[in-house]
Amino acid sequence: MNDNVTSGNPLISAAKVQGTAVYDTEGGRLGQVEDIMLHKVSGEVAYAVLSFGGVLGIGERFTPLPWSVLTYDPDRGGYVVPLAKERLQNAPHYDRAELTNDDNGWGARVNDFYQVTPSWA
Amino acid sequence: MNDNVTSGNPLISAAKVQGTAVYDTEGGRLGQVEDIMLHKVSGEVAYAVLSFGGVLGIGERFTPLPWSVLTYDPDRGGYVVPLAKERLQNAPHYDRAELTNDDNGWGARVNDFYQVTPSWA
Repeated sequence: MNDNVTSGNPLISAAKVQGTAVYDTEGGRLGQVEDIMLHKVSGEVAYAVLSFGGVLGIGERFTPLPWSVLTYDPDRGGYVVPLAKERLQNAPHYDRAELTNDDNGWGARVNDFYQVTPSWA
Repeated sequence: MNDNVTSGNPLISAAKVQGTAVYDTEGGRLGQVEDIMLHKVSGEVAYAVLSFGGVLGIGERFTPLPWSVLTYDPDRGGYVVPLAKERLQNAPHYDRAELTNDDNGWGARVNDFYQVTPSWA
């Protein structure tokens, strides 16, 4: 559940979410939504994949957050997460291949870290 | 529900879905998935937005299909929809602004056309 419902359109395109900034509750910019992971069987939006701006993608790490952790703030034009930068730095993170090609069970580790139980789990 | 579940990873990234080819059941190429529309409140993948390859996007039309209509075919490496090209040409279609900025009720018209009732409706 995500309360990104302030605009008139009940739908949002994935392309619009990709690239949207992510802030902490103090307004500090944490990074941006790089991609979205969809759960195939349930058809649900499962995770927002945050990036923190590596140099040309070299050594770039991606931090998946359960979609329900993000709240859209229309004033900031970005998502807010109730997490300090330090906590995010210690959160489970992966490279792109691990996230997209590999079934290494990262979803369960991410759910544990954020203490979220998705509907399909 | 989508049976794109043949690979080991129960998740797929939106970036991977964007650009994936769409075929009819005879194997004819219909177009490609241009984008994905997410339903904000339920957090569900609502529609795949098909494009048919306009020239530099000029006059390009986008045809949203309920996500449940698409089936992933690992042999073809693309999605299959049980629709003839002629039927898709007559399906509801919109330009990008209509799809992404405007709450003009296109979702209801698309659901009607494909006779699909999404869980949030």
